[in-house]
Amino acid sequence: MVAIIQDVSEMQRAAESLRTAGKRIGIVPTMGYLHEGHLSLIRTAKHHADVVVTTIFVNPKQFGPAEDYERYPRDLSNDSLLASSAGTDYIFAPESKSMYPNEYLTDVHIERYSSILEGRSRPGHFQGVATVVTKLLNITKPHVAVFGQKDAQQAVVIRQMLRDLNYDIELVIAPTVREADGLALSSRNSYLSTEERKQAPVLFQSLNLAEQRVREGVRVSVRIINEMSEFITNRSAGVIDYISIADSNTLEELSAIEGQRSVLISLAVRFGATRLIDNQIVKV
Amino acid sequence: MVAIIQDVSEMQRAAESLRTAGKRIGIVPTMGYLHEGHLSLIRTAKHHADVVVTTIFVNPKQFGPAEDYERYPRDLSNDSLLASSAGTDYIFAPESKSMYPNEYLTDVHIERYSSILEGRSRPGHFQGVATVVTKLLNITKPHVAVFGQKDAQQAVVIRQMLRDLNYDIELVIAPTVREADGLALSSRNSYLSTEERKQAPVLFQSLNLAEQRVREGVRVSVRIINEMSEFITNRSAGVIDYISIADSNTLEELSAIEGQRSVLISLAVRFGATRLIDNQIVKV
Repeated sequence: MVAIIQDVSEMQRAAESLRTAGKRIGIVPTMGYLHEGHLSLIRTAKHHADVVVTTIFVNPKQFGPAEDYERYPRDLSNDSLLASSAGTDYIFAPESKSMYPNEYLTDVHIERYSSILEGRSRPGHFQGVATVVTKLLNITKPHVAVFGQKDAQQAVVIRQMLRDLNYDIELVIAPTVREADGLALSSRNSYLSTEERKQAPVLFQSLNLAEQRVREGVRVSVRIINEMSEFITNRSAGVIDYISIADSNTLEELSAIEGQRSVLISLAVRFGATRLIDNQIVKV
Repeated sequence: MVAIIQDVSEMQRAAESLRTAGKRIGIVPTMGYLHEGHLSLIRTAKHHADVVVTTIFVNPKQFGPAEDYERYPRDLSNDSLLASSAGTDYIFAPESKSMYPNEYLTDVHIERYSSILEGRSRPGHFQGVATVVTKLLNITKPHVAVFGQKDAQQAVVIRQMLRDLNYDIELVIAPTVREADGLALSSRNSYLSTEERKQAPVLFQSLNLAEQRVREGVRVSVRIINEMSEFITNRSAGVIDYISIADSNTLEELSAIEGQRSVLISLAVRFGATRLIDNQIVKV
Protein backbone atom coordinates (compact mmCIF):
# COMPACT_ATOMS: atom_id res chain seq x y z
CA MET A 1 0.00 0.00 0.00
CA VAL A 2 1.13 3.49 -0.80
CA ALA A 3 0.39 6.52 1.39
CA ILE A 4 -0.55 9.64 -0.54
CA ILE A 5 0.35 12.89 1.21
CA GLN A 6 -0.59 16.34 -0.05
CA ASP A 7 0.29 18.44 2.98
CA VAL A 8 3.84 19.78 3.34
CA SER A 9 3.98 19.55 7.14
CA GLU A 10 2.51 16.06 7.16
CA MET A 11 5.19 14.90 4.71
CA GLN A 12 7.89 16.50 6.86
CA ARG A 13 6.61 14.77 9.98
CA ALA A 14 6.44 11.42 8.18
CA ALA A 15 9.99 11.87 6.85
CA GLU A 16 11.28 12.90 10.26
CA SER A 17 9.72 9.82 11.87
CA LEU A 18 11.29 7.57 9.26
CA ARG A 19 14.72 9.11 9.76
CA THR A 20 14.44 8.88 13.54
CA ALA A 21 13.50 5.21 13.14
CA GLY A 22 16.75 4.70 11.23
CA LYS A 23 15.13 4.25 7.83
CA ARG A 24 17.02 5.34 4.74
CA ILE A 25 14.80 7.53 2.55
CA GLY A 26 15.03 7.69 -1.23
CA ILE A 27 13.26 10.38 -3.25
CA VAL A 28 12.19 10.21 -6.89
CA PRO A 29 11.02 13.68 -7.97
CA THR A 30 8.61 13.51 -10.92
CA MET A 31 5.96 15.59 -12.64
CA GLY A 32 3.67 12.55 -12.72
CA TYR A 33 2.02 10.84 -15.69
CA LEU A 34 4.37 8.03 -14.83
CA HIS A 35 5.83 5.68 -17.41
CA GLU A 36 8.32 2.85 -17.33
CA GLY A 37 11.18 5.38 -17.13
CA HIS A 38 9.88 6.72 -13.83
CA LEU A 39 9.21 3.20 -12.56
CA SER A 40 12.80 2.34 -13.29
CA LEU A 41 13.86 5.34 -11.15
CA ILE A 42 11.60 4.13 -8.34
CA ARG A 43 13.09 0.62 -8.52
CA THR A 44 16.57 2.14 -8.44
CA ALA A 45 15.60 4.22 -5.39
CA LYS A 46 14.24 1.10 -3.67
CA HIS A 47 17.58 -0.54 -4.26
CA HIS A 48 19.38 2.37 -2.52
CA ALA A 49 16.91 3.06 0.30
CA ASP A 50 14.50 1.44 2.78
CA VAL A 51 11.63 3.76 1.97
CA VAL A 52 10.87 5.44 -1.36
CA VAL A 53 9.04 8.75 -1.63
CA THR A 54 7.88 9.56 -5.16
CA THR A 55 6.94 13.19 -5.55
CA ILE A 56 4.38 14.14 -8.16
CA PHE A 57 4.22 17.84 -8.84
CA VAL A 58 3.86 19.67 -12.14
CA ASN A 59 6.07 22.58 -11.15
CA PRO A 60 4.83 25.81 -12.74
CA LYS A 61 8.16 27.55 -12.13
CA GLN A 62 10.04 25.36 -14.60
CA PHE A 63 7.69 26.09 -17.50
CA GLY A 64 8.09 29.16 -19.69
CA PRO A 65 5.04 31.32 -20.45
CA ALA A 66 4.69 29.77 -23.93
CA GLU A 67 5.23 26.22 -22.72
CA ASP A 68 2.87 23.37 -21.93
CA TYR A 69 2.21 23.82 -18.19
CA GLU A 70 -1.57 23.86 -18.58
CA ARG A 71 -1.81 20.91 -20.95
CA TYR A 72 0.92 18.84 -19.29
CA PRO A 73 -0.74 15.44 -18.75
CA ARG A 74 -1.90 14.56 -15.22
CA ASP A 75 -3.33 11.30 -13.82
CA LEU A 76 -2.75 10.95 -10.08
CA SER A 77 -4.90 7.86 -9.55
CA ASN A 78 -3.14 5.83 -12.23
CA ASP A 79 0.23 7.24 -11.08
CA SER A 80 -0.50 5.97 -7.58
CA LEU A 81 -1.09 2.43 -8.83
CA LEU A 82 2.04 2.44 -10.98
CA ALA A 83 4.27 4.04 -8.34
CA SER A 84 3.03 1.61 -5.72
CA SER A 85 3.59 -1.39 -7.98
CA ALA A 86 7.20 -0.30 -8.51
CA GLY A 87 7.87 -0.05 -4.78
CA THR A 88 6.93 3.49 -3.77
CA ASP A 89 5.97 3.78 -0.10
CA TYR A 90 4.88 7.42 -0.08
CA ILE A 91 3.58 9.66 -2.82
CA PHE A 92 3.97 13.35 -2.08
CA ALA A 93 1.61 15.23 -4.37
CA PRO A 94 1.22 18.81 -3.13
CA GLU A 95 -1.02 21.43 -4.66
CA SER A 96 0.62 24.31 -6.44
CA LYS A 97 -0.68 26.91 -3.99
CA SER A 98 0.84 25.09 -1.02
CA MET A 99 4.22 24.96 -2.76
CA TYR A 100 4.05 28.57 -3.97
CA PRO A 101 1.76 30.44 -1.57
CA ASN A 102 1.06 34.15 -1.87
CA GLU A 103 4.18 36.21 -1.33
CA TYR A 104 6.51 33.44 -2.47
CA LEU A 105 9.84 35.19 -3.15
CA THR A 106 12.76 32.75 -3.14
CA ASP A 107 14.73 31.21 -5.99
CA VAL A 108 17.76 28.97 -6.23
CA HIS A 109 19.94 29.93 -9.15
CA ILE A 110 22.88 28.04 -10.62
CA GLU A 111 25.08 30.16 -12.82
CA ARG A 112 26.32 29.12 -16.22
CA TYR A 113 24.52 25.73 -16.42
CA SER A 114 21.20 27.53 -16.33
CA SER A 115 21.74 29.54 -19.50
CA ILE A 116 23.23 27.04 -21.95
CA LEU A 117 21.71 24.22 -24.05
CA GLU A 118 18.22 23.50 -22.64
CA GLY A 119 18.55 26.67 -20.55
CA ARG A 120 19.09 28.77 -23.67
CA SER A 121 15.94 27.34 -25.23
CA ARG A 122 14.04 27.44 -21.94
CA PRO A 123 14.96 30.58 -19.95
CA GLY A 124 14.21 30.18 -16.25
CA HIS A 125 13.71 26.42 -16.58
CA PHE A 126 16.67 25.30 -14.47
CA GLN A 127 16.08 27.98 -11.85
CA GLY A 128 12.59 26.51 -11.52
CA VAL A 129 14.00 23.00 -11.32
CA ALA A 130 16.69 23.86 -8.76
CA THR A 131 14.17 25.76 -6.63
CA VAL A 132 11.54 23.02 -6.57
CA VAL A 133 14.10 20.29 -5.95
CA THR A 134 15.49 22.28 -2.99
CA LYS A 135 11.96 22.54 -1.61
CA LEU A 136 11.21 18.85 -2.19
CA LEU A 137 14.46 17.80 -0.50
CA ASN A 138 13.63 19.93 2.54
CA ILE A 139 10.16 18.42 2.69
CA THR A 140 11.03 14.74 2.15
CA LYS A 141 14.45 14.75 3.89
CA PRO A 142 15.97 11.96 1.79
CA HIS A 143 19.32 10.22 2.11
CA VAL A 144 19.40 9.53 -1.61
CA ALA A 145 17.81 11.22 -4.63
CA VAL A 146 17.29 9.51 -7.99
CA PHE A 147 17.05 11.36 -11.30
CA GLY A 148 17.13 10.11 -14.89
CA GLN A 149 19.91 10.45 -17.42
CA LYS A 150 17.24 11.38 -19.99
CA ASP A 151 17.41 14.91 -18.55
CA ALA A 152 21.19 15.05 -18.72
CA GLN A 153 21.58 18.74 -18.06
CA GLN A 154 19.13 18.59 -15.16
CA ALA A 155 21.34 15.90 -13.62
CA VAL A 156 24.37 18.18 -13.92
CA VAL A 157 22.46 21.14 -12.45
CA ILE A 158 21.19 19.08 -9.50
CA ARG A 159 24.63 17.62 -8.84
CA GLN A 160 26.06 21.15 -8.74
CA MET A 161 23.27 22.42 -6.49
CA LEU A 162 23.63 19.53 -4.03
CA ARG A 163 27.37 20.12 -3.85
CA ASP A 164 27.21 23.91 -3.60
CA LEU A 165 24.44 24.02 -0.99
CA ASN A 166 26.06 21.16 0.99
CA TYR A 167 23.11 18.79 0.88
CA ASP A 168 24.16 15.59 2.67
CA ILE A 169 22.36 13.55 0.03
CA GLU A 170 23.59 10.88 -2.37
CA LEU A 171 22.70 11.48 -6.01
CA VAL A 172 21.97 8.53 -8.29
CA ILE A 173 21.48 9.03 -12.01
CA ALA A 174 19.63 6.14 -13.62
CA PRO A 175 19.88 5.21 -17.30
CA THR A 176 17.30 6.28 -19.88
CA VAL A 177 14.55 3.77 -20.57
CA ARG A 178 13.52 3.43 -24.23
CA GLU A 179 10.75 2.01 -26.35
CA ALA A 180 11.64 -0.99 -28.51
CA ASP A 181 12.36 1.37 -31.43
CA GLY A 182 14.70 3.51 -29.33
CA LEU A 183 12.46 6.47 -28.48
CA ALA A 184 13.30 7.68 -24.97
CA LEU A 185 10.28 7.40 -22.68
CA SER A 186 8.73 10.77 -21.86
CA SER A 187 5.35 11.93 -20.64
CA ARG A 188 5.41 14.34 -23.58
CA ASN A 189 5.40 11.41 -26.06
CA SER A 190 1.66 11.32 -25.43
CA TYR A 191 1.38 14.58 -27.42
CA LEU A 192 2.71 12.94 -30.62
CA SER A 193 0.47 12.08 -33.55
CA THR A 194 0.76 8.59 -35.02
CA GLU A 195 2.96 9.89 -37.83
CA GLU A 196 5.15 11.94 -35.45
CA ARG A 197 5.48 8.93 -33.17
CA LYS A 198 6.76 6.89 -36.12
CA GLN A 199 9.40 9.50 -36.88
CA ALA A 200 10.43 10.29 -33.29
CA PRO A 201 13.09 7.53 -33.03
CA VAL A 202 15.29 9.68 -35.31
CA LEU A 203 16.58 11.35 -32.15
CA PHE A 204 17.97 8.08 -30.81
CA GLN A 205 19.12 6.93 -34.24
CA SER A 206 21.02 10.16 -34.81
CA LEU A 207 22.71 9.72 -31.42
CA ASN A 208 23.78 6.22 -32.42
CA LEU A 209 25.15 7.60 -35.67
CA ALA A 210 27.11 10.22 -33.73
CA GLU A 211 28.48 7.61 -31.36
CA GLN A 212 29.61 5.54 -34.35
CA ARG A 213 31.39 8.56 -35.86
CA VAL A 214 33.20 9.29 -32.58
CA ARG A 215 34.26 5.63 -32.44
CA GLU A 216 35.53 5.89 -36.01
CA GLY A 217 37.75 8.75 -34.88
CA VAL A 218 35.87 11.80 -36.11
CA ARG A 219 36.83 14.65 -33.74
CA VAL A 220 35.43 17.80 -35.35
CA SER A 221 32.05 18.43 -33.73
CA VAL A 222 30.49 20.29 -36.63
CA ARG A 223 31.03 17.31 -38.93
CA ILE A 224 29.13 15.05 -36.56
CA ILE A 225 26.43 17.64 -35.84
CA ASN A 226 25.86 18.29 -39.55
CA GLU A 227 25.49 14.62 -40.23
CA MET A 228 23.00 14.21 -37.37
CA SER A 229 21.10 17.24 -38.62
CA GLU A 230 20.88 15.87 -42.18
CA PHE A 231 19.88 12.47 -40.86
CA ILE A 232 16.99 13.93 -38.85
CA THR A 233 15.82 16.33 -41.53
CA ASN A 234 15.90 13.68 -44.27
CA ARG A 235 13.95 11.15 -42.25
CA SER A 236 11.39 13.22 -40.35
CA ALA A 237 9.41 16.44 -40.14
CA GLY A 238 11.28 17.24 -36.92
CA VAL A 239 12.62 20.78 -36.54
CA ILE A 240 15.94 20.83 -34.76
CA ASP A 241 16.17 23.16 -31.76
CA TYR A 242 19.80 22.30 -31.01
CA ILE A 243 22.36 19.54 -31.35
CA SER A 244 25.31 19.79 -29.01
CA ILE A 245 28.57 18.00 -28.31
CA ALA A 246 29.82 19.02 -24.89
CA ASP A 247 32.19 18.00 -22.14
CA SER A 248 30.08 15.60 -20.08
CA ASN A 249 31.20 17.10 -16.76
CA THR A 250 31.23 20.84 -17.44
CA LEU A 251 28.70 20.90 -20.33
CA GLU A 252 31.13 23.18 -22.15
CA GLU A 253 30.42 22.86 -25.86
CA LEU A 254 33.30 21.46 -27.85
CA SER A 255 34.30 22.49 -31.33
CA ALA A 256 36.59 19.48 -31.31
CA ILE A 257 36.77 16.39 -29.10
CA GLU A 258 40.27 16.66 -27.67
CA GLY A 259 41.37 15.18 -24.38
CA GLN A 260 37.85 14.47 -23.14
CA ARG A 261 37.30 11.01 -21.73
CA SER A 262 33.60 11.24 -22.40
CA VAL A 263 31.33 13.67 -24.21
CA LEU A 264 27.65 14.42 -23.87
CA ILE A 265 25.88 14.46 -27.21
CA SER A 266 22.44 15.97 -26.75
CA LEU A 267 19.65 17.35 -28.88
CA ALA A 268 16.18 18.83 -28.85
CA VAL A 269 13.80 18.39 -31.77
CA ARG A 270 10.30 19.75 -32.25
CA PHE A 271 7.51 17.73 -33.80
CA GLY A 272 4.77 20.27 -34.22
CA ALA A 273 4.23 21.76 -30.77
CA THR A 274 5.94 18.83 -29.06
CA ARG A 275 9.54 19.25 -28.04
CA LEU A 276 11.54 16.06 -27.49
CA ILE A 277 15.01 15.74 -26.01
CA ASP A 278 17.50 12.91 -25.87
CA ASN A 279 21.19 12.41 -25.19
CA GLN A 280 23.99 9.94 -25.10
CA ILE A 281 27.21 9.97 -23.12
CA VAL A 282 29.92 8.65 -25.42
CA LYS A 283 33.23 7.39 -24.06
CA VAL A 284 36.05 8.61 -26.27
CA MET B 1 34.26 21.43 26.54
CA VAL B 2 33.53 22.63 23.06
CA ALA B 3 34.34 20.65 19.90
CA ILE B 4 35.74 22.77 17.07
CA ILE B 5 35.00 21.37 13.62
CA GLN B 6 36.34 22.84 10.39
CA ASP B 7 35.40 20.09 7.95
CA VAL B 8 31.97 20.15 6.29
CA SER B 9 31.52 16.36 6.15
CA GLU B 10 32.67 15.93 9.74
CA MET B 11 30.09 18.49 10.90
CA GLN B 12 27.38 16.74 8.87
CA ARG B 13 28.26 13.38 10.42
CA ALA B 14 28.25 14.87 13.92
CA ALA B 15 24.88 16.55 13.30
CA GLU B 16 23.41 13.35 11.86
CA SER B 17 24.56 11.35 14.90
CA LEU B 18 23.01 13.91 17.24
CA ARG B 19 19.70 13.84 15.38
CA THR B 20 19.66 10.04 15.28
CA ALA B 21 20.28 10.04 19.04
CA GLY B 22 17.16 12.18 19.44
CA LYS B 23 19.00 15.37 20.34
CA ARG B 24 17.47 18.70 19.37
CA ILE B 25 20.05 20.86 17.61
CA GLY B 26 20.14 24.65 17.77
CA ILE B 27 22.31 26.72 15.44
CA VAL B 28 23.65 30.23 16.04
CA PRO B 29 25.22 31.51 12.81
CA THR B 30 27.84 34.20 13.45
CA MET B 31 30.79 35.85 11.77
CA GLY B 32 32.78 35.47 14.99
CA TYR B 33 34.51 38.13 17.08
CA LEU B 34 31.84 37.24 19.60
CA HIS B 35 30.39 39.74 22.04
CA GLU B 36 27.65 39.63 24.65
CA GLY B 37 25.04 39.91 21.88
CA HIS B 38 26.18 36.63 20.34
CA LEU B 39 26.42 35.01 23.77
CA SER B 40 22.83 35.98 24.39
CA LEU B 41 21.88 34.20 21.12
CA ILE B 42 23.79 31.12 22.27
CA ARG B 43 22.00 31.11 25.63
CA THR B 44 18.69 31.47 23.82
CA ALA B 45 19.59 28.53 21.56
CA LYS B 46 20.52 26.44 24.59
CA HIS B 47 17.09 27.19 25.99
CA HIS B 48 15.44 25.85 22.81
CA ALA B 49 17.74 22.89 22.07
CA ASP B 50 19.77 20.09 23.64
CA VAL B 51 22.90 20.84 21.67
CA VAL B 52 24.08 24.21 20.37
CA VAL B 53 26.22 24.62 17.26
CA THR B 54 27.73 28.09 16.89
CA THR B 55 29.02 28.69 13.40
CA ILE B 56 31.85 31.14 12.91
CA PHE B 57 32.41 32.12 9.32
CA VAL B 58 33.21 35.52 7.84
CA ASN B 59 31.19 34.99 4.69
CA PRO B 60 32.85 36.74 1.72
CA LYS B 61 29.64 36.58 -0.33
CA GLN B 62 27.79 39.01 1.91
CA PHE B 63 30.42 41.75 1.66
CA GLY B 64 30.48 44.21 -1.20
CA PRO B 65 33.76 44.88 -3.04
CA ALA B 66 34.24 48.19 -1.16
CA GLU B 67 33.28 46.73 2.21
CA ASP B 68 35.31 45.48 5.18
CA TYR B 69 35.71 41.76 4.45
CA GLU B 70 39.49 41.81 4.74
CA ARG B 71 39.66 43.89 7.90
CA TYR B 72 36.62 42.31 9.58
CA PRO B 73 37.91 41.32 13.06
CA ARG B 74 38.70 37.64 13.69
CA ASP B 75 39.70 35.84 16.91
CA LEU B 76 38.80 32.15 16.86
CA SER B 77 40.60 31.17 20.06
CA ASN B 78 38.87 33.81 22.17
CA ASP B 79 35.58 33.09 20.38
CA SER B 80 35.90 29.44 21.39
CA LEU B 81 36.27 30.32 25.06
CA LEU B 82 33.33 32.73 24.97
CA ALA B 83 31.06 30.45 22.95
CA SER B 84 31.86 27.53 25.23
CA SER B 85 31.19 29.56 28.37
CA ALA B 86 27.76 30.51 27.02
CA GLY B 87 26.83 26.88 26.39
CA THR B 88 28.00 26.10 22.87
CA ASP B 89 28.68 22.40 22.31
CA TYR B 90 30.10 22.59 18.79
CA ILE B 91 31.82 25.38 16.92
CA PHE B 92 31.70 25.00 13.16
CA ALA B 93 34.40 27.23 11.69
CA PRO B 94 35.02 26.26 8.07
CA GLU B 95 37.59 27.81 5.80
CA SER B 96 36.37 29.96 2.97
CA LYS B 97 37.72 27.63 0.28
CA SER B 98 35.79 24.67 1.68
CA MET B 99 32.55 26.68 1.69
CA TYR B 100 33.17 28.17 -1.77
CA PRO B 101 35.40 25.75 -3.66
CA ASN B 102 36.45 26.29 -7.25
CA GLU B 103 33.49 26.20 -9.60
CA TYR B 104 31.03 27.31 -6.95
CA LEU B 105 27.94 28.42 -8.90
CA THR B 106 24.82 28.48 -6.71
CA ASP B 107 22.96 31.37 -5.08
CA VAL B 108 19.77 31.68 -3.09
CA HIS B 109 17.93 34.85 -3.95
CA ILE B 110 14.96 36.43 -2.19
CA GLU B 111 13.15 38.99 -4.28
CA ARG B 112 12.10 42.38 -3.02
CA TYR B 113 13.60 42.14 0.51
CA SER B 114 17.04 41.91 -1.01
CA SER B 115 16.95 45.26 -2.78
CA ILE B 116 15.42 47.61 -0.18
CA LEU B 117 16.85 49.33 2.95
CA GLU B 118 20.11 47.54 3.82
CA GLY B 119 19.94 45.78 0.46
CA ARG B 120 19.85 49.10 -1.40
CA SER B 121 22.97 50.25 0.45
CA ARG B 122 24.61 46.83 0.19
CA PRO B 123 23.80 45.20 -3.19
CA GLY B 124 24.22 41.41 -3.06
CA HIS B 125 24.39 41.38 0.74
CA PHE B 126 21.18 39.45 1.42
CA GLN B 127 21.81 37.02 -1.44
CA GLY B 128 25.11 36.27 0.28
CA VAL B 129 23.38 35.89 3.63
CA ALA B 130 20.58 33.66 2.31
CA THR B 131 23.08 31.49 0.44
CA VAL B 132 25.44 30.95 3.36
CA VAL B 133 22.60 30.33 5.79
CA THR B 134 21.16 27.70 3.44
CA LYS B 135 24.57 26.02 3.34
CA LEU B 136 25.04 26.22 7.12
CA LEU B 137 21.58 24.73 7.73
CA ASN B 138 22.34 21.83 5.40
CA ILE B 139 25.64 21.24 7.17
CA THR B 140 24.50 21.53 10.79
CA LYS B 141 20.96 20.11 10.36
CA PRO B 142 19.36 22.10 13.17
CA HIS B 143 15.84 21.93 14.60
CA VAL B 144 16.00 25.59 15.62
CA ALA B 145 17.99 28.58 14.35
CA VAL B 146 18.61 31.71 16.41
CA PHE B 147 19.28 35.14 14.90
CA GLY B 148 19.38 38.61 16.47
CA GLN B 149 16.83 41.39 16.13
CA LYS B 150 19.77 43.78 15.68
CA ASP B 151 19.82 42.68 12.03
CA ALA B 152 16.10 43.18 11.59
CA GLN B 153 16.01 42.89 7.82
CA GLN B 154 18.18 39.79 7.92
CA ALA B 155 15.63 38.22 10.26
CA VAL B 156 12.86 38.98 7.76
CA VAL B 157 14.90 37.61 4.86
CA ILE B 158 15.73 34.39 6.74
CA ARG B 159 12.13 33.91 7.85
CA GLN B 160 11.03 34.25 4.22
CA MET B 161 13.73 31.88 2.98
CA LEU B 162 12.91 29.21 5.57
CA ARG B 163 9.24 29.43 4.68
CA ASP B 164 9.72 29.49 0.90
CA LEU B 165 12.25 26.66 0.79
CA ASN B 166 10.25 24.58 3.30
CA TYR B 167 12.96 24.23 5.91
CA ASP B 168 11.49 22.26 8.82
CA ILE B 169 13.30 24.55 11.25
CA GLU B 170 12.02 26.82 14.01
CA LEU B 171 13.25 30.40 13.83
CA VAL B 172 13.90 32.34 17.03
CA ILE B 173 14.73 36.05 16.91
CA ALA B 174 16.43 37.22 20.09
CA PRO B 175 16.38 40.83 21.32
CA THR B 176 19.23 43.26 20.71
CA VAL B 177 21.80 43.48 23.50
CA ARG B 178 23.05 47.01 24.26
CA GLU B 179 25.84 48.74 26.12
CA ALA B 180 24.83 50.71 29.22
CA ASP B 181 24.57 53.86 27.08
CA GLY B 182 22.28 52.17 24.56
CA LEU B 183 24.72 51.38 21.75
CA ALA B 184 23.73 48.08 20.14
CA LEU B 185 26.52 45.51 20.45
CA SER B 186 28.30 44.86 17.17
CA SER B 187 31.68 43.45 16.21
CA ARG B 188 32.06 46.59 14.10
CA ASN B 189 31.99 48.80 17.22
CA SER B 190 35.66 47.84 17.58
CA TYR B 191 36.38 50.06 14.56
CA LEU B 192 35.16 53.22 16.36
CA SER B 193 37.56 55.87 17.67
CA THR B 194 37.03 57.04 21.25
CA GLU B 195 35.19 60.14 20.04
CA GLU B 196 33.03 58.15 17.59
CA ARG B 197 32.24 55.65 20.34
CA LYS B 198 31.01 58.52 22.52
CA GLN B 199 28.69 59.73 19.77
CA ALA B 200 27.45 56.32 18.57
CA PRO B 201 24.54 56.07 21.06
CA VAL B 202 22.72 58.70 18.96
CA LEU B 203 21.34 55.80 16.89
CA PHE B 204 19.57 54.31 19.89
CA GLN B 205 18.59 57.71 21.25
CA SER B 206 17.04 58.73 17.93
CA LEU B 207 15.05 55.47 17.91
CA ASN B 208 13.74 56.25 21.38
CA LEU B 209 12.78 59.72 20.20
CA ALA B 210 10.92 58.17 17.25
CA GLU B 211 9.12 55.72 19.50
CA GLN B 212 8.03 58.60 21.73
CA ARG B 213 6.66 60.52 18.72
CA VAL B 214 4.68 57.47 17.54
CA ARG B 215 3.28 57.09 21.06
CA GLU B 216 2.32 60.80 21.02
CA GLY B 217 0.29 60.10 17.89
CA VAL B 218 2.55 61.41 15.14
CA ARG B 219 1.68 59.40 12.00
CA VAL B 220 3.49 61.15 9.14
CA SER B 221 6.78 59.29 8.66
CA VAL B 222 8.74 62.20 7.22
CA ARG B 223 8.10 64.27 10.35
CA ILE B 224 9.59 61.57 12.54
CA ILE B 225 12.45 60.85 10.14
CA ASN B 226 13.37 64.54 9.87
CA GLU B 227 13.44 64.88 13.63
CA MET B 228 15.66 61.78 13.97
CA SER B 229 17.92 63.13 11.27
CA GLU B 230 18.30 66.52 12.96
CA PHE B 231 18.87 64.83 16.30
CA ILE B 232 21.72 62.71 14.93
CA THR B 233 23.30 65.48 12.89
CA ASN B 234 23.19 67.98 15.75
CA ARG B 235 24.75 65.61 18.25
CA SER B 236 27.33 63.67 16.24
CA ALA B 237 29.58 63.55 13.21
CA GLY B 238 27.54 60.59 11.95
CA VAL B 239 26.53 60.62 8.29
CA ILE B 240 23.08 59.15 7.79
CA ASP B 241 22.83 56.38 5.18
CA TYR B 242 19.08 55.90 5.65
CA ILE B 243 16.32 56.21 8.19
CA SER B 244 13.23 54.16 7.46
CA ILE B 245 9.78 53.60 8.90
CA ALA B 246 8.37 50.40 7.47
CA ASP B 247 5.70 47.77 8.01
CA SER B 248 7.42 45.35 10.39
CA ASN B 249 6.20 42.27 8.49
CA THR B 250 6.56 43.28 4.85
CA LEU B 251 9.29 45.93 5.27
CA GLU B 252 7.25 48.14 2.97
CA GLU B 253 8.21 51.74 3.69
CA LEU B 254 5.37 53.84 5.00
CA SER B 255 4.75 57.48 4.22
CA ALA B 256 2.18 57.38 7.00
CA ILE B 257 1.54 54.94 9.83
CA GLU B 258 -2.02 53.85 9.16
CA GLY B 259 -3.51 50.55 10.22
CA GLN B 260 -0.17 48.95 11.10
CA ARG B 261 -0.07 47.20 14.46
CA SER B 262 3.69 47.59 14.61
CA VAL B 263 6.32 49.39 12.58
CA LEU B 264 10.01 48.80 12.12
CA ILE B 265 12.03 51.98 12.54
CA SER B 266 15.55 51.35 11.30
CA LEU B 267 18.61 53.35 10.38
CA ALA B 268 22.20 53.13 9.21
CA VAL B 269 24.75 55.79 10.11
CA ARG B 270 28.40 56.10 9.11
CA PHE B 271 31.10 57.22 11.50
CA GLY B 272 34.11 57.61 9.26
CA ALA B 273 34.50 54.25 7.50
CA THR B 274 32.38 52.46 10.11
CA ARG B 275 28.77 51.80 9.27
CA LEU B 276 26.44 51.15 12.21
CA ILE B 277 22.84 49.95 12.09
CA ASP B 278 20.11 49.80 14.67
CA ASN B 279 16.34 49.39 14.79
CA GLN B 280 13.31 49.32 17.00
CA ILE B 281 9.96 47.65 16.50
CA VAL B 282 7.33 50.05 17.79
CA LYS B 283 3.82 48.87 18.63
CA VAL B 284 1.30 51.41 17.36
